[in-house]
Amino acid sequence: MSARSIILDCDPGHDDAVAIMLALGNDAIDLRAITTVGGNQVIDKVTYNAQAMLAACGREDVPVYRGASRPLLREVEVADEIHGETGLDGVELPQPSVELAPGHAVEAICRMVREAEPGELMLVATGPLTNLALAVRLEPSIVERVREVVIMGGGYHEGNWSAVAEFNIAVDPEAAAIVFAEKWPLTMVGLDLTHQALATSSVEEKMAALDTELSRIFLGLMAFFREAYRENQGFTDPPVHDPCTIAYLIDPSIVATRKAPVSVETRGELTCGMTVTDLRAPAPPECHTQVATHLDADRFWDLVIDAVRALGEETA
Amino acid sequence: MSARSIILDCDPGHDDAVAIMLALGNDAIDLRAITTVGGNQVIDKVTYNAQAMLAACGREDVPVYRGASRPLLREVEVADEIHGETGLDGVELPQPSVELAPGHAVEAICRMVREAEPGELMLVATGPLTNLALAVRLEPSIVERVREVVIMGGGYHEGNWSAVAEFNIAVDPEAAAIVFAEKWPLTMVGLDLTHQALATSSVEEKMAALDTELSRIFLGLMAFFREAYRENQGFTDPPVHDPCTIAYLIDPSIVATRKAPVSVETRGELTCGMTVTDLRAPAPPECHTQVATHLDADRFWDLVIDAVRALGEETA
Amino acid sequence: MSARSIILDCDPGHDDAVAIMLALGNDAIDLRAITTVGGNQVIDKVTYNAQAMLAACGREDVPVYRGASRPLLREVEVADEIHGETGLDGVELPQPSVELAPGHAVEAICRMVREAEPGELMLVATGPLTNLALAVRLEPSIVERVREVVIMGGGYHEGNWSAVAEFNIAVDPEAAAIVFAEKWPLTMVGLDLTHQALATSSVEEKMAALDTELSRIFLGLMAFFREAYRENQGFTDPPVHDPCTIAYLIDPSIVATRKAPVSVETRGELTCGMTVTDLRAPAPPECHTQVATHLDADRFWDLVIDAVRALGEETA
Amino acid sequence: MSARSIILDCDPGHDDAVAIMLALGNDAIDLRAITTVGGNQVIDKVTYNAQAMLAACGREDVPVYRGASRPLLREVEVADEIHGETGLDGVELPQPSVELAPGHAVEAICRMVREAEPGELMLVATGPLTNLALAVRLEPSIVERVREVVIMGGGYHEGNWSAVAEFNIAVDPEAAAIVFAEKWPLTMVGLDLTHQALATSSVEEKMAALDTELSRIFLGLMAFFREAYRENQGFTDPPVHDPCTIAYLIDPSIVATRKAPVSVETRGELTCGMTVTDLRAPAPPECHTQVATHLDADRFWDLVIDAVRALGEETA
Repeated sequence: MSARSIILDCDPGHDDAVAIMLALGNDAIDLRAITTVGGNQVIDKVTYNAQAMLAACGREDVPVYRGASRPLLREVEVADEIHGETGLDGVELPQPSVELAPGHAVEAICRMVREAEPGELMLVATGPLTNLALAVRLEPSIVERVREVVIMGGGYHEGNWSAVAEFNIAVDPEAAAIVFAEKWPLTMVGLDLTHQALATSSVEEKMAALDTELSRIFLGLMAFFREAYRENQGFTDPPVHDPCTIAYLIDPSIVATRKAPVSVETRGELTCGMTVTDLRAPAPPECHTQVATHLDADRFWDLVIDAVRALGEETA
Repeated sequence: MSARSIILDCDPGHDDAVAIMLALGNDAIDLRAITTVGGNQVIDKVTYNAQAMLAACGREDVPVYRGASRPLLREVEVADEIHGETGLDGVELPQPSVELAPGHAVEAICRMVREAEPGELMLVATGPLTNLALAVRLEPSIVERVREVVIMGGGYHEGNWSAVAEFNIAVDPEAAAIVFAEKWPLTMVGLDLTHQALATSSVEEKMAALDTELSRIFLGLMAFFREAYRENQGFTDPPVHDPCTIAYLIDPSIVATRKAPVSVETRGELTCGMTVTDLRAPAPPECHTQVATHLDADRFWDLVIDAVRALGEETA
Repeated sequence: MSARSIILDCDPGHDDAVAIMLALGNDAIDLRAITTVGGNQVIDKVTYNAQAMLAACGREDVPVYRGASRPLLREVEVADEIHGETGLDGVELPQPSVELAPGHAVEAICRMVREAEPGELMLVATGPLTNLALAVRLEPSIVERVREVVIMGGGYHEGNWSAVAEFNIAVDPEAAAIVFAEKWPLTMVGLDLTHQALATSSVEEKMAALDTELSRIFLGLMAFFREAYRENQGFTDPPVHDPCTIAYLIDPSIVATRKAPVSVETRGELTCGMTVTDLRAPAPPECHTQVATHLDADRFWDLVIDAVRALGEETA
Repeated sequence: MSARSIILDCDPGHDDAVAIMLALGNDAIDLRAITTVGGNQVIDKVTYNAQAMLAACGREDVPVYRGASRPLLREVEVADEIHGETGLDGVELPQPSVELAPGHAVEAICRMVREAEPGELMLVATGPLTNLALAVRLEPSIVERVREVVIMGGGYHEGNWSAVAEFNIAVDPEAAAIVFAEKWPLTMVGLDLTHQALATSSVEEKMAALDTELSRIFLGLMAFFREAYRENQGFTDPPVHDPCTIAYLIDPSIVATRKAPVSVETRGELTCGMTVTDLRAPAPPECHTQVATHLDADRFWDLVIDAVRALGEETA
């Protein structure tokens, strides 16, 4: 299998940072660009964080495009109690030395998809879906040119921002509704799956054993993340959501999936932002969405650790 | 333990009929009255069915009060593809020989609760919650006089009328929102639980062995119900929802429960009628709702079979 | 024309008090009962106020039934900035000497309509429509037995509680939706009309000239009302909404009306509680609703003054 | 006064066509570009119509940019009963001889505003607001660079697509909500105003007297429009909405306005797409929206006739 060519649309964010490391440190992934979107923190901060993570990984050749600063309709809402004031509290990253790529993330996505072969590019989104929604409305033809859309967000039985909604979907439900309704193949890696991706002490020990700059960054991120999740959501070990999308692309056997129709609720008083998944019957043949159900956590963490090791060797 | 005194608010309906048999055939339950509500079929039909089931059980001493003919705000919607034209398709029941009790079901509920000792009466609802909602608005004091409200309806992870909503709640979500929001102890016996109450062939064989009028009625009901559920919802064996409420009152050890806040969505486009349950953390101390999670199906069916046997002896 | 027999469902309230005076002081109205509903103030206060106004008018023979303490679905919201802490701030009324009539207002409405001849009784509502909604759900047959329903509430082009909604409808929009949707003849006397019923200084002078107990009560009410409307809604003279319904029944030539379909919005973020009126074309023949458009203010106030004069003579 | 430089975002459409003629035929307007949006008809048809109208006016130097083919969230809905199968039924226009300008309308709007002086450009929108909403989300800085936004759409007391909503707003209410909420100076030329812009027989007679190609096009458009409005909305003379925006820019004394807060309802069941206008009190100082209230119809039509005359001389 040749490498998966992806655009990573993200809002780093501790787990986005791990997703970036996994995408850069595994040969199965060809990271063409990072596009940013306001989410875990405001757009300026997450854009800086994306650049700084590339600097930390020694990969500032990957272009970073700044994207939407706010949701389509709702007011900006950030997750600072989970990601801190900077969006990446807990670590000191090197300052970026490369400028932002010119143009808006949405235009970059449209152009890259247009210029790639049909079926060549994948879109991986680990933040609110504002950029993807704007792209699809600006250039509807990308829907049939993209190979697959893989989303960290939502959940069929689990919520975190409310009883039944997850943060990335809840803060821009209209954008999510647009993205889920388009007929591209779409994989939802939701909380049902990512709450299995816990950074346990055993994971941390293996990472500590690497003893590189990047492993220390990982550990610094996790130290803050662990405390934030403990205080705010009652977790013992923090769930590291975003890299599950990359792991799924590297090796689909690590992430079990099930075909099912998924639509986004934009109206409910209690359910706004819920990814409503119909599990009552086998999905109809034309169903273009699937949901991630079970994670092979051991192999997942092996991938992450291997990637951090590989990047450490490169940067050394 | 003395017998549980209940008012059964129902819309028979095949599984309501089984609930009536279980309530009448087990000494732990003291069925004070049946109140009816439009639901599985229109009010005239379900009221007749309630009377006819009492006649079949030889218990026309239990008063039947006719209740709401329609939801608070929505149009009437019935489940005729599940319960047939009569609401109890599949059997011939004896004609009732006793008149309806005078007055409206809502007034009867208010009066009976007012006249009972505080904490004496329980309300068991196995249809839409229209009557209970009207009662609580007409006489708010019933909330603190009722011992407990046990509801067949909703579900925290399962739906049948939509991907995430159950029929009884979905057809009158505003009534359900009223009932769930009042601060009485409320147990939701939802689809998560009742989809475990399957009338398997083994259940039917045991029932057939009784060889009484009522066991034949049970089998006739199940024959139609099985086919309806097979065609409409893809079930092999039909889930017999409503008697699970009675079984829970007879022996709570048969129905595992978990305290959790539950609220009813009345607005969503995709989620209207969902019983939104917050399972993210332990319920707060003031939480007045609990949800049924696991059924001991063997003991449940033993209770039902014993009840049908006991009634058969009485009617013989 | 024989007298109009009415039940007045109200939440006194300064303008409700004037409506009571007009209903009692004009022979064309036969006030059979007052039913109360939480609205301008909480149910205890408005019920007391109804009784006290009857005492002030020397008409405690009219029974008062206490009704709904809260809206169907929403939380209680009162208009204390308009009506003060007591609901009738600005006057001292005599203490009632007669007990409340037994039973709930909703049951009283149902019973009185049932026991009257078809087409004999009219319902006049000058508060939130909670009682009427509960009555119609408890006893649907009242819809065809009532002669007409006349409502002070709503508006086709004017709002007060929001840009497009009026208080009585806005605080219980679901109740209003129920009442407007039933197929009885319904006249909406909304803000479009009642904002023409201004208690000018000229009105006050004529009333002062009566120099009776009741005229002084009227003036005391208006003094407070004027100030409240000036501060809160920027009116110079206060609009005296509720008696317009009674004036319409006494002499329909005082209140011009137009047939038009009216429905109540229960969902909008900005429009919840709006009485959406379709004025685009002539109303279809089956249209059962009409809206009040133009008030003959001089003749209206003459009626009110005459009524206060007549009552003053009686009580003298 | 120097000429007003505008981008006209439109969906021709009969009255859009008249707006184009007025903009081209009056020296006070400098039409920099036409951008199109799906609305009265689908995007392909209205884009062709814009080009064809420029050809008919001999002004194919004005660039035409094709824009959004569908609303942000809702399904495409066109007004073919008003504008016919082509969107300009009733006339034969010359075929366009110039290609579309390259790039998307949204990108063109962003670029032109960015490249113009602050306060130089005005946006005039006579179709759904999808393009403007996308532009403002893609490049938020345009809000403070645009001089004014003038919109044909909505209405404070009138509706056409529903009792209280106008077509342009109703078909993409979310886009409208975005555009109205941004803090640029915005003038709503709604149905309250445009229902005064009736193409009477007197108007048609004056136009006929011109006896030019363009006057015949105007008359052909009006013949169809008159019939469509008569059949569908009960008008005797058709309201020619869109050129009122241009007339307002040419001479504000022709269109009386009033400052008032306006917000767009996106949720209501009966009110979705309503431009909710708060007329209860004088607008607060920070209010950035105004609504058109009264049209000087004679002077309006004089402007239109003069423009058609002027264009006729040019094309001759």
